[in-house]
Amino acid sequence: MIFRQLFDNESFTYTYLIADQQAKKAILVDPVITQVERDLRLLAEFDLTLSHTLETHIHADHITGAHALRQQTNCKIIVPANATEIHGEDKKIQHAEVLKLGHINITALATPGHTDDSMIYVVNKHCVLTGDTLFVRGCGRTDFQHGDPGQLYDSIQMHLFSLPDDTLVYPGHDYNGHTHSTVGEEKQWNPRLAERTREEFISIMENLNLPTPKKIKESVPANRYCGNLDVVP
Amino acid sequence: MIFRQLFDNESFTYTYLIADQQAKKAILVDPVITQVERDLRLLAEFDLTLSHTLETHIHADHITGAHALRQQTNCKIIVPANATEIHGEDKKIQHAEVLKLGHINITALATPGHTDDSMIYVVNKHCVLTGDTLFVRGCGRTDFQHGDPGQLYDSIQMHLFSLPDDTLVYPGHDYNGHTHSTVGEEKQWNPRLAERTREEFISIMENLNLPTPKKIKESVPANRYCGNLDVVP
Repeated sequence: MIFRQLFDNESFTYTYLIADQQAKKAILVDPVITQVERDLRLLAEFDLTLSHTLETHIHADHITGAHALRQQTNCKIIVPANATEIHGEDKKIQHAEVLKLGHINITALATPGHTDDSMIYVVNKHCVLTGDTLFVRGCGRTDFQHGDPGQLYDSIQMHLFSLPDDTLVYPGHDYNGHTHSTVGEEKQWNPRLAERTREEFISIMENLNLPTPKKIKESVPANRYCGNLDVVP
Repeated sequence: MIFRQLFDNESFTYTYLIADQQAKKAILVDPVITQVERDLRLLAEFDLTLSHTLETHIHADHITGAHALRQQTNCKIIVPANATEIHGEDKKIQHAEVLKLGHINITALATPGHTDDSMIYVVNKHCVLTGDTLFVRGCGRTDFQHGDPGQLYDSIQMHLFSLPDDTLVYPGHDYNGHTHSTVGEEKQWNPRLAERTREEFISIMENLNLPTPKKIKESVPANRYCGNLDVVP
């Protein structure tokens, strides 16, 4: 398996390249439109066919590279089953559905809370791509796109903190220079979750008073069209 | 072994935390002064004693966190043997010297070229911390601090490209969102090195026309005092 964590320094987004070297097939999770050239170069170097792009949710802080990648590679665009008002995707992935990539199994789990369509992806029981559901010592905000702190708490407890402690956590963003973590660490040291009740978590999330994401007005509509800027109304 | 890659978003610097979990001892390679709080928190969470800080070279783009970390933890500061005009270090590490951290062996190799004092650190034959000697699809510049492109070419060929192809490459910086690579990849796809003669490499490096690093005037003197800003003349 090839596993590469890639970073977009403008939106602090992590993109993941996962590939089966024998099958020569790859997927990209949460690609960023401004990094498509870099990602295509990496695919070409490894001599990989891009099979799918996969989103953890409809992002509010960057535009997906999915459409641009499909144009170049004929890959299929997969979005979470619960994503609404979506146009141009090739497939919606369901909760508990397993995407097979050669010998790699990628299991999608619906984890609403940051947004109502959020999903996490468990890769071969080795690691989990947590999107904005869980960050290293943090988590995604819950104040737009039908976010719900109670739901987020439940999603994390049920689908993330039930994984083995040594499962590697690869987040969708990091703003403090962390690259990854483990489930055990987040259970023990995530300041929003460790030894917090559901009510405490909700109270923390309801009092973050964060500014509106700078690019939300362009990102959400564009991402509802899988990043195809030519057709966004 | 705990292995964590940490990023400083201002200087695009990677810091590495390496620890033996049984011995509860850690080292930090290329810590950044503005990230010391984050690094100390991580050490505390893992219940690790910081044994040493280690520099790959005297940096021109950020100030080391070594002194601040020593103040807080009583760790020892190690600098490369060839670093000159250095004050306040605890130890100079020699070419081919092995630093032992519990069951982890960290082998220092002198790789002059980016600067005359540059070193790389091979960690347990598993990965190599390349500092500014080799980046993912790039390398450090050679136009100050006694840099020398011919020497850099020789250092890379002799000490990096002689390692097994699957050795993981963890660089000192990345400006394009790459986190790591392998020796085999860099041999094959590093545009400055793959299928390049020594003369071609020298010509590329001599024609980069890069601007002077913004913080060189404050960084180099501060780093010669191991980041102790109170005593920098």
